[in-house]
Order: sequence, then C-alpha cells, then structure tokens
Amino acid sequence: MGSGVYKNLIRNRDILHERTGSYLEVTKVAVRDLGRQRDVKVAPEKLTTDWRELVNDPEIDVIVELIGGDDEAFNLISAALEARKAVVTGNKAVLAKHGKRLIELSEEKNTPLYCEAAVAGGIPIIKAVKEALVGNRIDSIYGIINGTSNYILTRMTKAGINFAEALQEARDKGFAEADPSLDINGWDAGHKAIILGWLSYGRWLKPEEVSVTGIEEISAEDVAFADSLGYEIKLLGVIRQGQGDERIEVRVAPSLIPRTHILSSVDGVFNAVAVHGNVVGETLFYGSGAGQDATSSAVISDLADAAENLINEVGCTGFVPHGDYGAALPIEETLSQYYLRLSVVDEPGVLARIANITGENGIGILSVIQPEPKEPSKHIPLVLLLHDAAYGKIVDALGEILALEAVGAEHTLLRVETLEH
Amino acid sequence: MGSGVYKNLIRNRDILHERTGSYLEVTKVAVRDLGRQRDVKVAPEKLTTDWRELVNDPEIDVIVELIGGDDEAFNLISAALEARKAVVTGNKAVLAKHGKRLIELSEEKNTPLYCEAAVAGGIPIIKAVKEALVGNRIDSIYGIINGTSNYILTRMTKAGINFAEALQEARDKGFAEADPSLDINGWDAGHKAIILGWLSYGRWLKPEEVSVTGIEEISAEDVAFADSLGYEIKLLGVIRQGQGDERIEVRVAPSLIPRTHILSSVDGVFNAVAVHGNVVGETLFYGSGAGQDATSSAVISDLADAAENLINEVGCTGFVPHGDYGAALPIEETLSQYYLRLSVVDEPGVLARIANITGENGIGILSVIQPEPKEPSKHIPLVLLLHDAAYGKIVDALGEILALEAVGAEHTLLRVETLEH
Repeated sequence: MGSGVYKNLIRNRDILHERTGSYLEVTKVAVRDLGRQRDVKVAPEKLTTDWRELVNDPEIDVIVELIGGDDEAFNLISAALEARKAVVTGNKAVLAKHGKRLIELSEEKNTPLYCEAAVAGGIPIIKAVKEALVGNRIDSIYGIINGTSNYILTRMTKAGINFAEALQEARDKGFAEADPSLDINGWDAGHKAIILGWLSYGRWLKPEEVSVTGIEEISAEDVAFADSLGYEIKLLGVIRQGQGDERIEVRVAPSLIPRTHILSSVDGVFNAVAVHGNVVGETLFYGSGAGQDATSSAVISDLADAAENLINEVGCTGFVPHGDYGAALPIEETLSQYYLRLSVVDEPGVLARIANITGENGIGILSVIQPEPKEPSKHIPLVLLLHDAAYGKIVDALGEILALEAVGAEHTLLRVETLEH
Repeated sequence: MGSGVYKNLIRNRDILHERTGSYLEVTKVAVRDLGRQRDVKVAPEKLTTDWRELVNDPEIDVIVELIGGDDEAFNLISAALEARKAVVTGNKAVLAKHGKRLIELSEEKNTPLYCEAAVAGGIPIIKAVKEALVGNRIDSIYGIINGTSNYILTRMTKAGINFAEALQEARDKGFAEADPSLDINGWDAGHKAIILGWLSYGRWLKPEEVSVTGIEEISAEDVAFADSLGYEIKLLGVIRQGQGDERIEVRVAPSLIPRTHILSSVDGVFNAVAVHGNVVGETLFYGSGAGQDATSSAVISDLADAAENLINEVGCTGFVPHGDYGAALPIEETLSQYYLRLSVVDEPGVLARIANITGENGIGILSVIQPEPKEPSKHIPLVLLLHDAAYGKIVDALGEILALEAVGAEHTLLRVETLEH
C-alpha cells in the first residue's frame, strides 16, 4: 500500500501542487525488508528499517502509517503524536483496538490523526460523516465495507456457485489474500464498523460489545432462497442509534437486503455506505473498497489536509464527536427481521408446531416457502421470513424449534434488514 | 430554503456545538417580504429587508446567500467578500454566470466562498471533488443532478406515462415548481455542470461553450425502446477531459445509460454523481438532490467549515484548481454513441439506404430494431444504435437521412453514454 501512495504522489505531483500550493515530499520510508523487490523506485538513502528514525527526524512533518497490525502500529502512532508529527493511517485494526487512547493523545498534543484510508478505501466516508454531515444526527449507517466478502457473495448470487468455489475464484483473481480470515470471519468489516460507530456517536465500542458474524456458513441454497424472496445476501455493517432508546448498536453479519434498495446493486469488490442523517435524509457513497490505488487516493487526501493545516498552523480541528452519545445496545436486544431456513420432516402439522413456538415468543411470520423436494428425502427445507424481533427472542424460539422431533439440526438464521433508519 | 437552515441549526444546535466547539448563531435575516408567513419563528428584530445591513454589521462573520437569481446575488456576495465576510451560497445560477469573478474576489480578499448547497443538495459533491479527491486527475463526472427531471423520467419509465402526465404528477407532489422551465430545459443541471467543470478543471465555461438539452421532447415511445435495448433515459450532466486531447467538455442532455450501471438505479427525486479519478477509480455519491432539509445539511456543513476557519484565523484554503486545464471542446467534436429513432416508409431497401449514409460518414451501426407495426400505417418506427462518433458527424448524417424520400420528419436523436471514462 505504501508503494501506491509513493507512486501516485509522484504521478499527480503537479496537480497536487497546483491545487494545494504545497509539494508533498517523501523524505524517508521505513520498511520491514530493505531487499524486497518493490514496484516503485525509492532512492536507497531514503530507506530505513527503523521507524523511530522518521519519528526523530526534525525535517519530517507528517508520518504515514501503513504497516497494519495493532501493537507495533500503536507504538509508532503514539510516538509520532508525542513528537507532534501529524499522522495519516490506513490501519483499521489499530484504531478498533486503541482508537480511544490515540484520539485522546492526538487532542492532548493538538496534533491531528487522519484515518480516511482505514474505512472503505476510495470512498471518502470519514470526511463525509465527519465534515459534510456534521450538522446531522446520524440515524443509521448500513455499509458493505469488505470487498472480498462482497466479491464472494456476488459470485455466489450471479454464478450460483458455492462458498468454497467463490473463495477460490477470489484468490485466483487477487481479491482475497493468502490468509483471508479477517475478511471471511467479518472482523475486517467489524473494525471499520467500530470506527464508524465512534465517528457517529463518540463511543469506541469494545470488540465484545460488537456482534460480528462472517460469511463462511452461507450456502448456495440460502442465496437462491433469498433471491426467490426478492433479496440479496450481503455482508452488512450496521451502525445505528435508536430514536427513543439512545443506545448504540454496531454489528456485522451476512444479511438479506431488498433488491429494491440501491445497496443491493453494489457488486464485486466495490464497497458502499448508506448514511441516514436527520437533516440530509438518505445518502449513499460508493467506490472501490480496497486496492493500492483507491486506498492511496484516501491517504493523499489526508496528506493534503495535513499540509493545509501545517501551513495555517492549525492543530486538531473540530468535526469529531467529543461526547459519548450512549451505551452499547446488547446484541440480544437488537431488532431486525429474520430469515430462517430449517430442515424438517415432510409430514403434516410441522409448520403448525413451528408457528406455535414463534407465536408464543411474540414473533410474527411474514412469509413461508416450502419448495417441493427434488427427490424423496427424509428432511426437506422450510424457509420462514420473520417479523421484527429482538435477537434474543429469536435465539430462544430457535432453540425450541430445533428441539422438535420433526426438525433436523441443519438450519440457517440470518438477519433481514429493511434498511429503513 | 432559508427557513430550513434556520430550523435545522436550532434542531441540531447541541450536536453542532459538541462536534465543532462553536455555536452558530443567526444574528440577522434579510427577507424580501417581512409579512410573509414562515414555517419558523424568527424574532422580528432579527428581520430586515435590506441585505446591506448584514454586510455592514461588524458582529456578523458569515453571510448565507440563498436568494437565488444572478445579478442581485452577485452584488450581495461581492459586497460581503469586499467586507471580508465569509460567504456560504446555494445559488448555482450566480456561480454559473459570475463564478470566475467571485472566486477571484474571494482569493483577492482571502475570504472564503463556500458553495456545497449549489450542486446536488444533500450530496457533498463539492467537498468530495475538492478535498477528498484532491490527489486525482478527474477523468470524468457523470451526474443525475436535477431531481425534477429525474422524477419525470423515472415515472415515464416505471409507469409508462407520457411527459405531460409525468410533469403534472411532479407538480401535484410538489417536486416541480410553478415555473419548472429551468428544470425541464436542462439549465438548472447546466449551471451545476459548469460549477463541477470549474472544480475539476479550473475553467469556468461560458454558457455558449456548454451544450444543454432538456427533457421536453422525450416520448413514452423512446423510453420504451430504450428499455427494450437495456437502457434507461436519464438527464445526464457530463464533465470530462480527454486523455490525449486535454480539451474539456461540459454538457447536459437526456441520454441512454446502460441498466447494468448503478447510475441507472437512481430513481425519483434523488441525485447521484459518478466521479472517475485517475487514482481512486470509480466512485459514486447519492442523495436527495433538492428539498429544504437536504440542502440545509449542505449549508450547515459549509457554516461549520467557515466557523472552523474563523476560529483558526484561516482565510481561503487550497483545494481549488488555480490553473485552467484546457479549452472547451466544441460540441461538434464531442464523442458518444447515439440512439436514433426514425419514422420510415415500410418498404424494402430503406435500411440499406440509411446504412449507406451512416457508412459514408464513418459511423458504425451497433444494432437496429424495427418493431412490427401494430396497425397498417404509412410510416413505421426504425430505431438505430450507433457507434461512437463526433456529434457533428451525426448531425450531418442525420440531415442526409432525413432528406431521403422514404424517411419522415419525425425523429429522436439521443446520446448513449457507456459511462466509461
């Protein structure tokens, strides 16, 4: 990612100077391995393996942190802020883990910390929420914020292939890393959702306050059922604050979204973030979620902001929440509709017994599909769409349903998001 | 629109203070008619009918101009900048006509002029292009930037009604003003396109350098043919600079766009702007194009920027093009594909004669539809999709085609935009 920034700073050097009045010069580059082949040429005397050299260099005004990971990045960013050097980071993991401390340190030192590249690559969602929507209470944010997952789910939907095949395809095309676990298990999106939660509501939710589910369990069958019901399955980040209840929810899960909503048209490695503000109403921001170039556009925009503020001798600016707008809503209390696929014995009365259980738990049924089995088999699928209910209620009801003799163990429970705020 | 800003400043006063550290106080309001009923309560002593009182008041730091029109607004904005008061405007007409002079004056006085609300209401497209994409050469911008036209075209597409019916519906729903001529004839979008042209390429194109066509001539028949070919008709603003040829094109016209592109999902009064940058790649920004609230979100964001800069004693910041990246590309030389609906005599050899003419003019045919006539008639429709060609060439070829004896005078020529940059 560092190479992308370096390359594009040179490529658009004149445009940048003409627009901002500054030349952004790369003075020094800290790398892990001096010998590694890179796709940009950096003069050897600019390279070092010790980031402390950058932090201690009085000629350097801004440090760009793109090393990833959390603890070493935390040390680097802290040391830079302590030395009163502005920091630009693209690292969501370090912010999700240490954001509270880093932002406090940034304000304490009156030295800005920029993080546009940490969420949704080329989409300027940080600037949008922080500055452009500053006059809005954020009602909700729904985001497709992991390109790898979205690529896999798009291919499962469009090509009818299964998860393993789609993951292999993503690997072959370079859209999944050698170890794609953070993409697949939802935590890459989880880190981004935590950052958006802070930006919207001032509170850094702890990982244990955030519910994160990945896409590993999604089957081709579920994708097809969702399709026949008018939905697409997307890995969705939800950041939301209640209207009466001020508690905050931040969660990530594969969810059914209606095909009538523009978010459902976001395919492949693209990301999109739908923000509902109480003044602006509905907005959506769309672009490349990852990739060297898209991300370096975000880093360069932060560098330009940093340069502008240095020239004007401005430290930390406003535009961030300084309060803490509410506690975390426990996951059991979060509301949504649900998609429930069960595997049931093909005999009369099963649906009635299931409907009894949902009814007793106060959960309404929106629709039911029971497709004709293709071949005789003991268990056949039964798909239910369930009305808005607290997650805890659904889990309780599901436990009772799975205990029925006529219901097999295999099942899928997914959220259905209407995307209303 | 002023009422919306006033109302929302009060509604979200605490959030704004908590995020920016400032209270934004409305000191005085200049109105045309003191007696008019308003949906917000303003203390009578704050009201005046003379905007000069605001400009001359030393207590006032920022002037918000939302009076519309061009010449009086020009006087107001100039006077405010001369008095070194920052200006926030939502007025596209005044910028399209006097933008060059106003921006020069703003820089001369080192007093900022903000205009987020002038383009696409709730979509922060000015901040996005100016700041977030500052590190990009802008390859192209394609925008649906007039809500009224988009509502009308959406209804023609979805409900199969004609232009007059859809316009009436827009009026009934309050989506079209009493005099919707600037919406319908394309010039509202034209003014916005001129502003985006300046922001992207530093040049304020003159109205005569911009080609603007409205939606009045679009028939239900054309909408249906476009649909059967896989396209939707949208009033599209195009702002683009060639790769080899550095000349700039800014134009607005109803255009066919492929249904596979996310822009085609933008329905009703919503706006969307697709920006392609040479670093970030494809991005899209979506939101309410008009309406008191969406627009006031933009005004408030500019006010917060203005407050931040006042506190930090910063005047004009960078982030605007200071050069002039190229001359205007004459409309005759602009390239696109085309949709051509002709009315021809139903006899053999007509298509061959037409194809001869297009061929001689170097224009390839992509596809042809000749629907079976529903009832016997002298003329039947013939629809051609034509390859990329210069507009001048198409107009020449069309002249020759219309001169054929077998071709009637009734026809429609529309651009087809593939939306590649």
